[in-house]
Amino acid sequence: MFNWNKLRGEYMFKKVLVANRGEIAVQIIRALHDMDIEAVAVYSSADKDSLFVHLADEAICIGGPQPSDSYLNMTQIVSAATLTGCEAIHPGYGFLSENAEFVELCESCHIKFIGPSHKLISLMGDKANAREAMKSAGVPVIPGSEGDVTSIDQGEKIAEKIGFPVLLKSAAGGGGKGIREVDRPDQLRDAFEQAQREAKASFNDDSMYVEKLIRNAKHVEMQVIADDFGNVVYLPERDCSLQRNHQKVIEESPCVLISPAERKKLGEIVAHATLKLGYTNTGTYEFLMDETHHFYFMEMNTRLQVEHTITEEVTGIELVKGQLEVASGEKLSFSQADAAVKGHALECRLNAEDPENNFAPQPGKINHLFFPDGSLGVRIDSGVTNGSFISPFYDSMIAKLIVHLNDRDAVIAKMRRVLGELEITGVTTNQAFLYELISTDRFKKGTYSTSFIENDVLANRRGLDVAKSV
Amino acid sequence: MFNWNKLRGEYMFKKVLVANRGEIAVQIIRALHDMDIEAVAVYSSADKDSLFVHLADEAICIGGPQPSDSYLNMTQIVSAATLTGCEAIHPGYGFLSENAEFVELCESCHIKFIGPSHKLISLMGDKANAREAMKSAGVPVIPGSEGDVTSIDQGEKIAEKIGFPVLLKSAAGGGGKGIREVDRPDQLRDAFEQAQREAKASFNDDSMYVEKLIRNAKHVEMQVIADDFGNVVYLPERDCSLQRNHQKVIEESPCVLISPAERKKLGEIVAHATLKLGYTNTGTYEFLMDETHHFYFMEMNTRLQVEHTITEEVTGIELVKGQLEVASGEKLSFSQADAAVKGHALECRLNAEDPENNFAPQPGKINHLFFPDGSLGVRIDSGVTNGSFISPFYDSMIAKLIVHLNDRDAVIAKMRRVLGELEITGVTTNQAFLYELISTDRFKKGTYSTSFIENDVLANRRGLDVAKSV
Repeated sequence: MFNWNKLRGEYMFKKVLVANRGEIAVQIIRALHDMDIEAVAVYSSADKDSLFVHLADEAICIGGPQPSDSYLNMTQIVSAATLTGCEAIHPGYGFLSENAEFVELCESCHIKFIGPSHKLISLMGDKANAREAMKSAGVPVIPGSEGDVTSIDQGEKIAEKIGFPVLLKSAAGGGGKGIREVDRPDQLRDAFEQAQREAKASFNDDSMYVEKLIRNAKHVEMQVIADDFGNVVYLPERDCSLQRNHQKVIEESPCVLISPAERKKLGEIVAHATLKLGYTNTGTYEFLMDETHHFYFMEMNTRLQVEHTITEEVTGIELVKGQLEVASGEKLSFSQADAAVKGHALECRLNAEDPENNFAPQPGKINHLFFPDGSLGVRIDSGVTNGSFISPFYDSMIAKLIVHLNDRDAVIAKMRRVLGELEITGVTTNQAFLYELISTDRFKKGTYSTSFIENDVLANRRGLDVAKSV
Repeated sequence: MFNWNKLRGEYMFKKVLVANRGEIAVQIIRALHDMDIEAVAVYSSADKDSLFVHLADEAICIGGPQPSDSYLNMTQIVSAATLTGCEAIHPGYGFLSENAEFVELCESCHIKFIGPSHKLISLMGDKANAREAMKSAGVPVIPGSEGDVTSIDQGEKIAEKIGFPVLLKSAAGGGGKGIREVDRPDQLRDAFEQAQREAKASFNDDSMYVEKLIRNAKHVEMQVIADDFGNVVYLPERDCSLQRNHQKVIEESPCVLISPAERKKLGEIVAHATLKLGYTNTGTYEFLMDETHHFYFMEMNTRLQVEHTITEEVTGIELVKGQLEVASGEKLSFSQADAAVKGHALECRLNAEDPENNFAPQPGKINHLFFPDGSLGVRIDSGVTNGSFISPFYDSMIAKLIVHLNDRDAVIAKMRRVLGELEITGVTTNQAFLYELISTDRFKKGTYSTSFIENDVLANRRGLDVAKSV
């Protein structure tokens, strides 16, 4: 029979717990099974009939549908790992994936957390400290406040110094909460107060951060993966500029505006910083790129991201597998040369939300589902099947629609076909909105910036609404 | 809005009829839609609820479930094309795809047949003539009879001349009918009679062909695509040695035993022959490769093959799109350099058949179906959905399970996972048999020959049965 030694290194885990749900739990379970590792799922009572529960070798219910009762319930999850004899926990994205306390708890229970050290997660979790660390590691940063800003007066002084427009951000934040754009000095006080209130409510921490606002910027990010032996590989950049409310909607790799020389230069900067910081496993450096192709570090995500899929597609590298390899103490099994750009990849996030009603989430039961899988370059990652319930307790993402081909124009054409062919009833989705976005000239050219959806597509639509109502 | 000119050349068809069913009809319709071309399906009454009918822009019922009433009904199909204003017909594989009469009928009705000329289809359809044409075009052939063999005496003389073992084949045949292996002179007469009788019954033509039987051979084939301007590209070889009853079960590309230099040499031979023959569109040269890596031409398939998918995967070239481009009179949109090997691809044919009962077809209704699509490198091409009926009138293939990654070992591991995860109930399938095949050491090493399934796997199994019954 088959000899699996080569596929599972000497130190590789035999059983791993997946501390997540939905499509990413499905992906991680599949990667584990690809490596002949047993997968244990934990789930909330709302997810008992989910695909990821079905695919796991063992599954343990850890609480009610509220995230705090289940997917954020650290002790329950660590107990489940101990009870089932898991040697490691993969956190996926969201939930506990960037929670340093959870990582420390895992370590104290001799369970390997599949990610970087708790110290680096803490460091990157605080935007001001992360910025300082990056500055010293040679990564270009956006001009902004040094350390936390706690009062409006302090915020005003800094804004005047760096010049308007400025961006106010919660130091502890994420997910689009506690963020305000300020164009003129007279708008600062109100915006600061509102953002601080939102930050307090969302993160129980009203420390703010003030930085130069870069208009018409591209959100460009670069993922790295590093082992314990000083090997680090940077992966081709992703253009995630198509955002609404600071949430990514469509991502592509590579970014059409970036040259191979620029990719190499940015890659070497982040690879160098990764080594200098002693960062291991995978992480993503998020940058703004201005119109003159200057990069400004925004933040580092110390986990696998939703959009890691397009990087897998353009490189052929299985990133979850890579995470498992380095977490188990193996050397990286691929080199920088393996991470070359091969073709072009595009991802659209299909969400249960209503674009005609300010993108309000639309929980409900999927009555009919047809995914147009099955042709060259099409990949659809999803945690749902026919009859699944989109829960109001969690993220409204239904699927990631991914197309990868040699040529970007062909990718866009195929994504249009995939979006046209996809059938889903029972819940309202952003299917038509995604189709609209990739059909614009601006998208075709690849010159869209982070404000494109809000300032062009939606503003234009509102204009049409006004015109209609006159 | 989007400008599609670049995706659809000046001469490109606007509407194409798909003269096939099942997964290949789905693939062709998708390729048409990717290029913004309207797709017209024709279907038999047995297929009225099929996926390909649902996906087409228009669909026309052309007769009853018997192939002769519908998918082989030339005049009905040409009428349907004319009625719906189609400029071209894509024949897929099987049915009318290698029928020169049909091609002539299309031409006489000013409908472009998407494939080579009727003259070349005729030439390649006759094994003896094809062999002669290949010999003159510089392609190595198997020592064998010159011209048709019609009597046993004639067959005996030729067999003695080339030496035993020999293979008897119907000159008009295909699909494993009218074929016999003969080891010793005293077995020839019986085998010849049987094969001739089978050929007569299947093809209404008992002309035979006698050739040297090459044992422990690999079935290695190479596909080409050529335009009207003298451009031809050869594609990386496929190893299709895993066969049962001369039917392919599992295919992979590239062949692990073939070096880049051997690939280039064989490729240049078939590209040269393609030009010399004046062959256009796509076709596949099938070879036997003996243990010393000599290649012997067997036959040429003048159509797209089931296993073209693994070639798409390892090259990134969309072959149906390529066929449409050259058929419309455009130049090939890719070059020989684009057809380089990128990673490794494997295809398993999931059939509704019972491996425990001599692989008898198992028509029936699919009650439950779960395809494990959705991770890097996994592609599942199928024409069925939950609740589909596998008809006794047609081929029993349910799906093509395809895995493509950088590394062959990882491909095999992932295919094992895919086969393990796949769920299908209602019809018996060869799922476990495929899993068994790819789990053998011989498969792992890639050294299997065309006799592996019959002489090792199945013989071993029969041995076990005998042991059990003792």
